[in-house]
Amino acid sequence: LKLTRGKHNLVYKILKCAVACNKKYEPTWESLDSRPLPEWYDQAKFGIFIHWGVFSVPSFVSEWFWWYWKETRQKNVVDFMEKNYPPHFTYADFAKDFTAELYDPDQWADLFKESGAQYVVLTSKHHEGYTNWPSNVSWNWNSMDVGPHRDLVGELANSIRNRTYLKFGLYHSLFEWFNPLYLADKASNFTTRRYATEKSIQELYELVNTYKPDIVWSDGDPGPVEYWNSTGFLAWLYNDSPVKDMVVTNDRWGAGCMCKHGGYFTCQDRYSPGVLQHHKWENCMTIDRYSWGYRRNANIQDFLTIEEIISTFASTISCGGNMLMNVGPTKDGMIAPVFQDRLREFGSWLKVNGEAVYSSKPWRSQNDSVTPNIWYTEKPGTVYTFVLSWPKSNWIELGEPVPGNSTNEISLLGHKGLLEWYIRNSLLHIRMPNLNTSDLPCKWAWVLRLSGFV
Amino acid sequence: LKLTRGKHNLVYKILKCAVACNKKYEPTWESLDSRPLPEWYDQAKFGIFIHWGVFSVPSFVSEWFWWYWKETRQKNVVDFMEKNYPPHFTYADFAKDFTAELYDPDQWADLFKESGAQYVVLTSKHHEGYTNWPSNVSWNWNSMDVGPHRDLVGELANSIRNRTYLKFGLYHSLFEWFNPLYLADKASNFTTRRYATEKSIQELYELVNTYKPDIVWSDGDPGPVEYWNSTGFLAWLYNDSPVKDMVVTNDRWGAGCMCKHGGYFTCQDRYSPGVLQHHKWENCMTIDRYSWGYRRNANIQDFLTIEEIISTFASTISCGGNMLMNVGPTKDGMIAPVFQDRLREFGSWLKVNGEAVYSSKPWRSQNDSVTPNIWYTEKPGTVYTFVLSWPKSNWIELGEPVPGNSTNEISLLGHKGLLEWYIRNSLLHIRMPNLNTSDLPCKWAWVLRLSGFV
Amino acid sequence: LKLTRGKHNLVYKILKCAVACNKKYEPTWESLDSRPLPEWYDQAKFGIFIHWGVFSVPSFVSEWFWWYWKETRQKNVVDFMEKNYPPHFTYADFAKDFTAELYDPDQWADLFKESGAQYVVLTSKHHEGYTNWPSNVSWNWNSMDVGPHRDLVGELANSIRNRTYLKFGLYHSLFEWFNPLYLADKASNFTTRRYATEKSIQELYELVNTYKPDIVWSDGDPGPVEYWNSTGFLAWLYNDSPVKDMVVTNDRWGAGCMCKHGGYFTCQDRYSPGVLQHHKWENCMTIDRYSWGYRRNANIQDFLTIEEIISTFASTISCGGNMLMNVGPTKDGMIAPVFQDRLREFGSWLKVNGEAVYSSKPWRSQNDSVTPNIWYTEKPGTVYTFVLSWPKSNWIELGEPVPGNSTNEISLLGHKGLLEWYIRNSLLHIRMPNLNTSDLPCKWAWVLRLSGFV
Amino acid sequence: LKLTRGKHNLVYKILKCAVACNKKYEPTWESLDSRPLPEWYDQAKFGIFIHWGVFSVPSFVSEWFWWYWKETRQKNVVDFMEKNYPPHFTYADFAKDFTAELYDPDQWADLFKESGAQYVVLTSKHHEGYTNWPSNVSWNWNSMDVGPHRDLVGELANSIRNRTYLKFGLYHSLFEWFNPLYLADKASNFTTRRYATEKSIQELYELVNTYKPDIVWSDGDPGPVEYWNSTGFLAWLYNDSPVKDMVVTNDRWGAGCMCKHGGYFTCQDRYSPGVLQHHKWENCMTIDRYSWGYRRNANIQDFLTIEEIISTFASTISCGGNMLMNVGPTKDGMIAPVFQDRLREFGSWLKVNGEAVYSSKPWRSQNDSVTPNIWYTEKPGTVYTFVLSWPKSNWIELGEPVPGNSTNEISLLGHKGLLEWYIRNSLLHIRMPNLNTSDLPCKWAWVLRLSGFV
Repeated sequence: LKLTRGKHNLVYKILKCAVACNKKYEPTWESLDSRPLPEWYDQAKFGIFIHWGVFSVPSFVSEWFWWYWKETRQKNVVDFMEKNYPPHFTYADFAKDFTAELYDPDQWADLFKESGAQYVVLTSKHHEGYTNWPSNVSWNWNSMDVGPHRDLVGELANSIRNRTYLKFGLYHSLFEWFNPLYLADKASNFTTRRYATEKSIQELYELVNTYKPDIVWSDGDPGPVEYWNSTGFLAWLYNDSPVKDMVVTNDRWGAGCMCKHGGYFTCQDRYSPGVLQHHKWENCMTIDRYSWGYRRNANIQDFLTIEEIISTFASTISCGGNMLMNVGPTKDGMIAPVFQDRLREFGSWLKVNGEAVYSSKPWRSQNDSVTPNIWYTEKPGTVYTFVLSWPKSNWIELGEPVPGNSTNEISLLGHKGLLEWYIRNSLLHIRMPNLNTSDLPCKWAWVLRLSGFV
Repeated sequence: LKLTRGKHNLVYKILKCAVACNKKYEPTWESLDSRPLPEWYDQAKFGIFIHWGVFSVPSFVSEWFWWYWKETRQKNVVDFMEKNYPPHFTYADFAKDFTAELYDPDQWADLFKESGAQYVVLTSKHHEGYTNWPSNVSWNWNSMDVGPHRDLVGELANSIRNRTYLKFGLYHSLFEWFNPLYLADKASNFTTRRYATEKSIQELYELVNTYKPDIVWSDGDPGPVEYWNSTGFLAWLYNDSPVKDMVVTNDRWGAGCMCKHGGYFTCQDRYSPGVLQHHKWENCMTIDRYSWGYRRNANIQDFLTIEEIISTFASTISCGGNMLMNVGPTKDGMIAPVFQDRLREFGSWLKVNGEAVYSSKPWRSQNDSVTPNIWYTEKPGTVYTFVLSWPKSNWIELGEPVPGNSTNEISLLGHKGLLEWYIRNSLLHIRMPNLNTSDLPCKWAWVLRLSGFV
Repeated sequence: LKLTRGKHNLVYKILKCAVACNKKYEPTWESLDSRPLPEWYDQAKFGIFIHWGVFSVPSFVSEWFWWYWKETRQKNVVDFMEKNYPPHFTYADFAKDFTAELYDPDQWADLFKESGAQYVVLTSKHHEGYTNWPSNVSWNWNSMDVGPHRDLVGELANSIRNRTYLKFGLYHSLFEWFNPLYLADKASNFTTRRYATEKSIQELYELVNTYKPDIVWSDGDPGPVEYWNSTGFLAWLYNDSPVKDMVVTNDRWGAGCMCKHGGYFTCQDRYSPGVLQHHKWENCMTIDRYSWGYRRNANIQDFLTIEEIISTFASTISCGGNMLMNVGPTKDGMIAPVFQDRLREFGSWLKVNGEAVYSSKPWRSQNDSVTPNIWYTEKPGTVYTFVLSWPKSNWIELGEPVPGNSTNEISLLGHKGLLEWYIRNSLLHIRMPNLNTSDLPCKWAWVLRLSGFV
Repeated sequence: LKLTRGKHNLVYKILKCAVACNKKYEPTWESLDSRPLPEWYDQAKFGIFIHWGVFSVPSFVSEWFWWYWKETRQKNVVDFMEKNYPPHFTYADFAKDFTAELYDPDQWADLFKESGAQYVVLTSKHHEGYTNWPSNVSWNWNSMDVGPHRDLVGELANSIRNRTYLKFGLYHSLFEWFNPLYLADKASNFTTRRYATEKSIQELYELVNTYKPDIVWSDGDPGPVEYWNSTGFLAWLYNDSPVKDMVVTNDRWGAGCMCKHGGYFTCQDRYSPGVLQHHKWENCMTIDRYSWGYRRNANIQDFLTIEEIISTFASTISCGGNMLMNVGPTKDGMIAPVFQDRLREFGSWLKVNGEAVYSSKPWRSQNDSVTPNIWYTEKPGTVYTFVLSWPKSNWIELGEPVPGNSTNEISLLGHKGLLEWYIRNSLLHIRMPNLNTSDLPCKWAWVLRLSGFV
């Protein structure tokens, strides 16, 4: 996988796997965990997560609406339903209003490309069980039969692949809150397996065979791995599926699996350890601080600022993670302007600073030992320093980088010319250029290129 | 099973089976067909069929609406949709309007009792696949999750059992027109069996275990018996199910089965052979000549008159059949007045003439050889003669009954006194009483009791 | 107006008015009441009333649904709303479900013709204020803007006139329960007149000018005649309107007017005095005993039997009235089979007995002094005797008719031959023919033709 | 009217009018135009416009949706309807989905206060005719009867007045595209006046008497002033209405009136002359470049940037105008985050720079003659210079300000300390402070305070 700068975006030339591909994996964690993560994933750094489903219709509180309404009886949700709906209204009744009439997957693809993301992960099915594709095992509870009357997954897959070089992944919830088959299995302490065999696993095969996802992003803790037969599925996925060479998976394959087994680790939502991890991981996080699904009642304060997003991103990639940033489309199929705004701002930042991001590696230090809010990445011969806030004095002091044997030069990405620097008391002092607001290469978070430093 | 005349209706004292019950049936037709039909069924003669489902929402053309719309593209159905619905509307979208807010199963039960019926058969699921009970294997495509938000089957079962002595049966469609699992199995020429094992058979077990139906009225030709594992199900039903002793089944258990195997024979819709059958059978027919489901656009001419109903009934029971007469409730849960009218008229007729009906047997002749529109039934020592139209001259000539050795008397049911009769040229001449319209025991079809005739 | 028997129905050749038409009426009751009632009305005897509107959507309790819900807070209505609708649902929200997609006015016209009716009166607007035509003064609260999206009035007018010789009349409610303009006028004790001048009177002019109704059937007590300017409107209607010669009106033109002023008298709903009236009147009554609007939850017992209808009719015309019999179409535009049934039965009865009905006059006696359930009408030289129940003995004794000087003959309408009769003790004894049920000329209520009796 | 800085916002102490109030205005433009504009309006400078109505339901293309759909048959609108709705769907059918269930007028009020606006103008009724209050003359076509089931106008009036010191104004469209009364008047070339007298003028009186608006923002060109009787209404408004002293009006009171008569001038939408006007005027403009009503399908590029907003604002107030900036709430009652963002950004800018805005006057020059993108306002003794883009060299040259006789000092609003300046060749050279991005007093458009300059 090599980065080439295309006309409008970074494009990849995929290197087909060579040796590793001939290996046959056993349905055991020992074997499965030995599979090398396809390289493209670590190089990509930044992906877009999309939570879309029937929960986008009430679009209230969060995508866990159904659970809060019927299981935990959360007051604001119960009140909302009592105030606005007839007494016997059910969650399934929402589905007809999942209209998606404004859904334009080409527009989505263009937006994601512009954001600088290298992959996209769409919820094919959330815990509500409604499938965003016409699944054979979710009849009349899918996006073709009720609501949009369209194959939401398939249309996005096509647009992404026709218009961009982004990878396309699929989120899939193993369990379903209220599926009676699942509840029966659960009540049996997972000694029966009808739901797992007749529904969940069937969906996974359907998804992989039909849409050939580059990522299978599994979700759903409850139930042992054996119940789900996750190792069996993964062995098939790695050995025999149409995506066996390049597919990437995560770590949510059953109870006790998260942060231990599978492909990359997600550990928990919004996982951001702040220190280097020795296994590839992903920080899946949301622009709306409080929800993955679209909330109609969200206010502007509820959304991360671009500064917060870049800060999170710098920390994440410095510690070896990827960032999967979530947007929640509306029930009619729009990605709201506030999300577009953040994605485009982030894209404009990556246009200037992508050199320090894509295909970079964590450096020996993740953040600076002297000055806070400084994060590092590395490429051979170069250390990149992410400066989250511009120093008032224009001078930065760094405790970590040390000049190496080759030529040592420091520059600001997006700015011509070399910066003044010196070492005193083992600290590297760098003078930021004297730029007024009109001349800045970007508006938030600046990156220094330290050539020859080690 | 003995008939006792209750205050408002005939009531049964159920005789528990004795010898036959200990037999174990094998899952072969040879063994299953050897099971004696529980006696109550033949004695009951008349049942009510109810077709209710999502098809009651468009309520147009017939309960095959979906099929005509999407499969055969029947013009009037396609035009109806184009004229009245948005372009992408689906059949599943109708379900939300299946409101059933006026559904009062107690009222239904009372009406059925008043009609003189001895059993009721409700569609638990028609070919559309929507279940009228909260099935575990039809999640979000059932009456609890979308539409009525009620257990339609369970509520009627309770009302029937709490308020009447009628038997309660359930219709169930094996196949589903558009279920993708079924379509996949069908495409494999039924060599795969996912639909049958994960869906159809599961429903049958659910229904029997939950509602303990007195009749399992199976429907749906396509697919071999082996595909459905019908013999396996019936063996369980007869040997081990909670209704094993008294349950009655029909003959629609897979391709080639109809009119050959199972419980009683239905052979085809509105089956009315007109000659004696040697296996117990049922004429399932409709009051609306053209549809089983409610049709909003039906006109009065589309409904059988009470004369036609009684004529059909007389022919049916004379030839050894039961009549299962269908009503189609509205989407809001009403049995329309025109259906109520027919049921109550028929009930008033049965109040006068039930003696010739319930627990009767076919006679040696079914209809008269000389005078048309005359049908016979028999009870020990008595021949009942159904006279469908009153003779203009008041004299009837019959070619079949012959005076026996005991006392020979002829009377008109519902009328006091004996009738004048004589034999001439081997014909039995009977004089109907000289009654003007105000004095008739009933308004349509009169029954003569011929005591001692053979 | 002469009766000619057409192919399928009675048809009228209208005699244009001669002298009376040149008279100019003043807007005073004295002048207006002096207008002779156009002859066609008295000759017609039987009309169909149609109550159709937004109330046909809830279709529950009656067309006064809104009033019971919001004004009197009747428990069953309030409960119905709470159980089935969101908390803030309004009556106006029902309008969208007034779909009328099955409305076929040609079919209605054919049915009405078959019923033997000679005129039809449709609610153009009931107390709810929703107009069944696209009124200029009921914008977005009419059948073109919300609900059917059709001109219900205009379509029926066309069908009636294109396919039949029936007269077409329009019901119109002066007041509207909840119209804020009306409520303001009412609150001012009708000293302000905005509602009357801007809304109500405008509608009347629109209706007359657009649809040229043969009857203007006004409704609505509250408010003095002066408030409504009813005399002004009637003067225009009689002098200058396009229907001035043949239009017929009723007596509901403001407080204190009913049974006193206007055209024919209606006095009260279901008015049936049982004695001769000296001013032409109309008995407006309903087939559904409890409602003018369609009730989804009506049961068969709630509908008048054909015997009750004929009995009411015989009494009505014997006492000088016309009968206006109401049907309530469904929200989707059907006249339910139970209504069709009654109309067709009544039509079949009128085919046999119309001679005693159309263009008849009340006789000197209305009902018999000796035998109950006997009513009379008259045509020159003939007395018609309506016998509601067949005498058990076949003999009837009448206290009123007396043989006249001309030839005296008695026959049964629909039956060939003369009946045996004699006078004894001043009573006329008549022997009904000895007919069994198959030979009766009609099934309910028989009419004797007494030629030469006085 | 004096500006006092409150805790969170500017607050006004209203000076009651003295002399002018005793004047009686005649219903002529000569007299009405002589009324002085209440002072508060010119001092306020910035208001919020809100377009909300049934058009917020389709929320497609613009608030002129109905017109484009039915009158001009604009292709994208017609296609949208054909693709997504049944054939006979009408505009009125949208109203039921105007739910407003998330409408929290307190939250709106707080947001508007935070934006720095001093007044708010809400559409009480747009050209569609639907009233956002329960008008007596728009029965069943208003927000209480269909849709929100709330008094949208009244609730916002209360919240604004309870929580802020902002003025509350009401937009009102004189004409209605498709009101049949209006169309009839128009067809008569406005010689009939039913719509004007029975509908439009009634609404204006209702609005003023009920909600006591501080601004009556009339809209709608067609029809002569005499038709609308606008001068009569204004005479009442200024002489006798409950808001006679402080009410402000605009100039859209009939054909030929705009930019000529009434209160302040609006001239045309987004009016921005760029040169000083000699009559107080208002630039009503939109954050969404293409629509006043909410568009669900708007993308982030469709919204003005904060830089564009401030640039427009600086130009507007420099030339003597107020800016009325529009937001379009959603059908469920939210002001979308993108609008919140702009309002809050603008509010944060006004917190720093309000001194140069509120109660300022246009200066003798509006913009600079030498450097582009420089605008001026004035307060006694001080010239304020709006610098829209930061000069690269940090030096600005101005051609207009001249040092006066008193002390001459220049400072940057929000920044401590005086700036270096000198005059050379009649140009004023000012050195902007050397601030890096972290130290700027605001992020966009900086204002210089030139004390003693003339």
